[in-house]
Amino acid sequence: MASGRLDGLPLAMKWWGWGDRAKRFQIEGHPDLAEFLKTRLETTLEQEFPPVSLESILLAPSRLDRAQVDGLERILGESGISRDKLSRLEHAMGKSYRDVVRSRKGEVSCPPDAVLYPSGEEEIGKILEWASEHEVAVVPFGGGTSVVGGVEALGAEHHRAVISLDLCRLSRILHVDERSRTVRAQAGIRGPSLEEGLSGRGFTLGHFPQSFEYSTLGGWVATRSAGQQSTLYGKIEHMVQSLRMIHPGGTLETLTVPARAAGPDWNQIVTGSEGILGVITEVTLKLWPAPVRRRIGAFFFRDFREGAEASRKFLQNGLVPATLRVSDPEETQFGMILRPRSEDWKKQAFEHTGVWALEKMGYRQGKRCLMILGFEGDPESTDSDWKHARRICSDHGGFYLGRKPGMMWYRDRFEHPYLRDTLMDKGVLIDTVETSTTWENLVPLYEALQKILVESIRQTGVQGIVMAHLSHCYPSGSSLYFIFLAKQVQGEEMEQWWAIKKAASECILAHHGTISHHHGIGIDHARWAEKEHGPSAMKGLKGLKNSLDPKGIMNPGKILPVPVCIQREEPRIP
Amino acid sequence: MASGRLDGLPLAMKWWGWGDRAKRFQIEGHPDLAEFLKTRLETTLEQEFPPVSLESILLAPSRLDRAQVDGLERILGESGISRDKLSRLEHAMGKSYRDVVRSRKGEVSCPPDAVLYPSGEEEIGKILEWASEHEVAVVPFGGGTSVVGGVEALGAEHHRAVISLDLCRLSRILHVDERSRTVRAQAGIRGPSLEEGLSGRGFTLGHFPQSFEYSTLGGWVATRSAGQQSTLYGKIEHMVQSLRMIHPGGTLETLTVPARAAGPDWNQIVTGSEGILGVITEVTLKLWPAPVRRRIGAFFFRDFREGAEASRKFLQNGLVPATLRVSDPEETQFGMILRPRSEDWKKQAFEHTGVWALEKMGYRQGKRCLMILGFEGDPESTDSDWKHARRICSDHGGFYLGRKPGMMWYRDRFEHPYLRDTLMDKGVLIDTVETSTTWENLVPLYEALQKILVESIRQTGVQGIVMAHLSHCYPSGSSLYFIFLAKQVQGEEMEQWWAIKKAASECILAHHGTISHHHGIGIDHARWAEKEHGPSAMKGLKGLKNSLDPKGIMNPGKILPVPVCIQREEPRIP
Repeated sequence: MASGRLDGLPLAMKWWGWGDRAKRFQIEGHPDLAEFLKTRLETTLEQEFPPVSLESILLAPSRLDRAQVDGLERILGESGISRDKLSRLEHAMGKSYRDVVRSRKGEVSCPPDAVLYPSGEEEIGKILEWASEHEVAVVPFGGGTSVVGGVEALGAEHHRAVISLDLCRLSRILHVDERSRTVRAQAGIRGPSLEEGLSGRGFTLGHFPQSFEYSTLGGWVATRSAGQQSTLYGKIEHMVQSLRMIHPGGTLETLTVPARAAGPDWNQIVTGSEGILGVITEVTLKLWPAPVRRRIGAFFFRDFREGAEASRKFLQNGLVPATLRVSDPEETQFGMILRPRSEDWKKQAFEHTGVWALEKMGYRQGKRCLMILGFEGDPESTDSDWKHARRICSDHGGFYLGRKPGMMWYRDRFEHPYLRDTLMDKGVLIDTVETSTTWENLVPLYEALQKILVESIRQTGVQGIVMAHLSHCYPSGSSLYFIFLAKQVQGEEMEQWWAIKKAASECILAHHGTISHHHGIGIDHARWAEKEHGPSAMKGLKGLKNSLDPKGIMNPGKILPVPVCIQREEPRIP
Repeated sequence: MASGRLDGLPLAMKWWGWGDRAKRFQIEGHPDLAEFLKTRLETTLEQEFPPVSLESILLAPSRLDRAQVDGLERILGESGISRDKLSRLEHAMGKSYRDVVRSRKGEVSCPPDAVLYPSGEEEIGKILEWASEHEVAVVPFGGGTSVVGGVEALGAEHHRAVISLDLCRLSRILHVDERSRTVRAQAGIRGPSLEEGLSGRGFTLGHFPQSFEYSTLGGWVATRSAGQQSTLYGKIEHMVQSLRMIHPGGTLETLTVPARAAGPDWNQIVTGSEGILGVITEVTLKLWPAPVRRRIGAFFFRDFREGAEASRKFLQNGLVPATLRVSDPEETQFGMILRPRSEDWKKQAFEHTGVWALEKMGYRQGKRCLMILGFEGDPESTDSDWKHARRICSDHGGFYLGRKPGMMWYRDRFEHPYLRDTLMDKGVLIDTVETSTTWENLVPLYEALQKILVESIRQTGVQGIVMAHLSHCYPSGSSLYFIFLAKQVQGEEMEQWWAIKKAASECILAHHGTISHHHGIGIDHARWAEKEHGPSAMKGLKGLKNSLDPKGIMNPGKILPVPVCIQREEPRIP
């Protein structure tokens, strides 16, 4: 009954990887990249490690009995519940490295016992009531793009089954208040539908996470998501004006007002609650006028510190770029390698000369850093901000590279996740960690985390590539985003990954960074979130959860770890 | 042992009213005002209703026994605890109309049994431990400026005594991070000390509530305070980067990072918790560069709607004024009357001609509205924003009145609260209600609330003056602030006030406004906060409170009503 998926966007991701089934990142078209990876990762890239076939996967049968299914069908109708293999597989987990490793091997130890497709709040209320009564865990599911285990269909010891609650049918824009510049929409709406509904009226939300094409409004809010242009448009928690959340036994609703002193702020308690308190069903968000001018370009800086300093100066001088990324030397080089090689010998020669000249000018490979900078909005302020920002770049030794690298980044910004699947086909580990910190602490944290990633990869017996950029900037600090690659240790992929992840996470906290700037907590970050927030906050959160979800059915194991999960296999996290 | 007050700022407010004991608003210098009030309020203003003398007030003796006082002295030293009459009186309540009416009559039914002056977190932790053990309620006290009953020394039925915890000794700036533009300070620091410590380094917090001279950082955070220039600088909840809160049995501390996805956001749970979860002891806030240019001026609009529309256009066109207030016709007239009359007949004649000309141009008394508009920051953007804003004003029929009215408002902005004491001396009720809503809903809410205030005052048997302004603007909406005056119904002052307050509060909620944009909940708004947030939120908040304050000692009766208070008299709120 896959029709459930069709009411929202009909896009379903690969069950074993990222995005559109028909799309693949073709490493064959990037000979420089292949060469680079071979050298740096000490691998031939010749062996293939494809995902297992769908047919070969055996899922444990659904634990719901006939009477239970009948009960759910009475609430949802027959088309509102799926128990077929593909639906259960697609809803078993999200898209973290851990998830994808397991999916590709067919190790799907905890598929949901059913996937439900409610069409509105009334049905959701009834489902939560039913689940409380039957001791069934409920995992809210938006786009399924979590990279921290946020939608894994886990239950706790006392749960008899687990259902995945797919919100794709709650996909409508409910109201656009043009005068107040707000939009109210249902939580299951995906990025493109929402933006389409707004652009016709001259508005944008400005929220473009890398998962934009698949992820949903409810998921963004549940995880405190950030769009790639959050420096201008804000993180999702800065946009939320009001929301509704159905929890077992009730509905929490906030008023649509621009600010309030009637504290605490329930918008901010629900935002980031990752489904452990209830199911977000509607959200009202601030809107922006759709930009009419866009300036984007790229610069080289002689080192990461200069690029970071220029970024800080922008934000502290009232310049708010829509796009701002400063890659470290390794990511800068990787970006160069990732570009398709020009076939035109004249262009090639020109480029070589350019690179030679840059070296002479002190923009040395291994030191130089690429900044992608973009402003957008009304023509006048976009132009004047762009000029002002170029002056600041110059002050910090920034060398203008033109529009092209910026435009290429902008064009390809939703394509990069496809690279992971291709690399995993070749036996390469690729994952990310991200954090945020103050400007004062940015370079120390960057250096420490870079070092620990390199070392911890080496300790798994292989060489790594570790690259980073800063992005999502604020007057007081910035996010830091690391990508790391290594040859997979076959048969011990999870242990290898976990050793690196653990070392990186501990390093982040030891250096005063947050365990996540925009990926969320889920399962993967739960132990460090506990450390970050401390015992008082965790005690408070438990008290809050117990009040709104007294039977503990909502998204077990996320944010608040549960002692034992009803997986057939223990989770491999040590 | 008033020395406890001296470690922080040595300013202590009048126990029976607002601010500096030596200061008084001289109605005698404002003959137009006196005339206006006499006519409109149908009062002669001749009878005096002075506050009772300090000597005539009898406070119930402290319920702490010698052993308990010894216990507290072991924690705090002798100088850290006061039980003298003036200290207890000053800490019995805040500065709401209800508080001032009772204070002036000497009806101080619930003075704290002691006032404690801890000098640090360790002492606070020990006090909370002591209080939990002895079943003593603890009321955190900053500047004591709450206008919603937030610091009233109430206990619940099971409390044996109540202590007021004055944080004035926690008054240090701990660290300024110039690179990240943040300041960390102790919660008991008052506005002027904080700004003084920052201005020498070229920074400002930009937080100037009307209570600025007296209120404290901790109080601002606890109540989600807004400065008069919050349109530019943000409300306090937009500035908080991290904080520490001591609660019974532990400490909650958040990381100083610009943003995070490790939800929920504990900064935003503690901000607005009004002391019911614990005692805020330290806060890190975003800083702004001290403005080097300031442009301020005033405009007339032909009606309130046009002034509101111009304000909306500023915010939605990226113009962020530091000061933006649009008075309705009544407040506009009141402001004119409040000005000292010019002695110079030439100036008088000139003014009369001006007013006549304005009338001819359609800016009619009873319709025309005054806007105070100010920009500040760096010279370039201040000037260009000012020009742009003037164009928008012109588009909406704004008539520029020059700098003077704006500068006068700026000069007098902390003086207006003194008017209340003078009017109460003359038997005049004066109070405020405030809310916020979307631009779409602004005029409907304004009209409804204006009408209900006029009517509900009339129902108490007298004529009122009801005036309002919008201020604290956002791209999606604005705050609305009402001031109302009426002749006091002697002997039934509280019943009269309550009838009006109740009608206004119900009207706000019925018209989708929040019960408070920046005054907070305290006692006065608790029943409507419950209605605004709904039963799910209240259940959640109780769960949260029970986890962090299991004995329920923290600031009873605020936000969450308690069934019975250990006052000698029942609270007069019906």
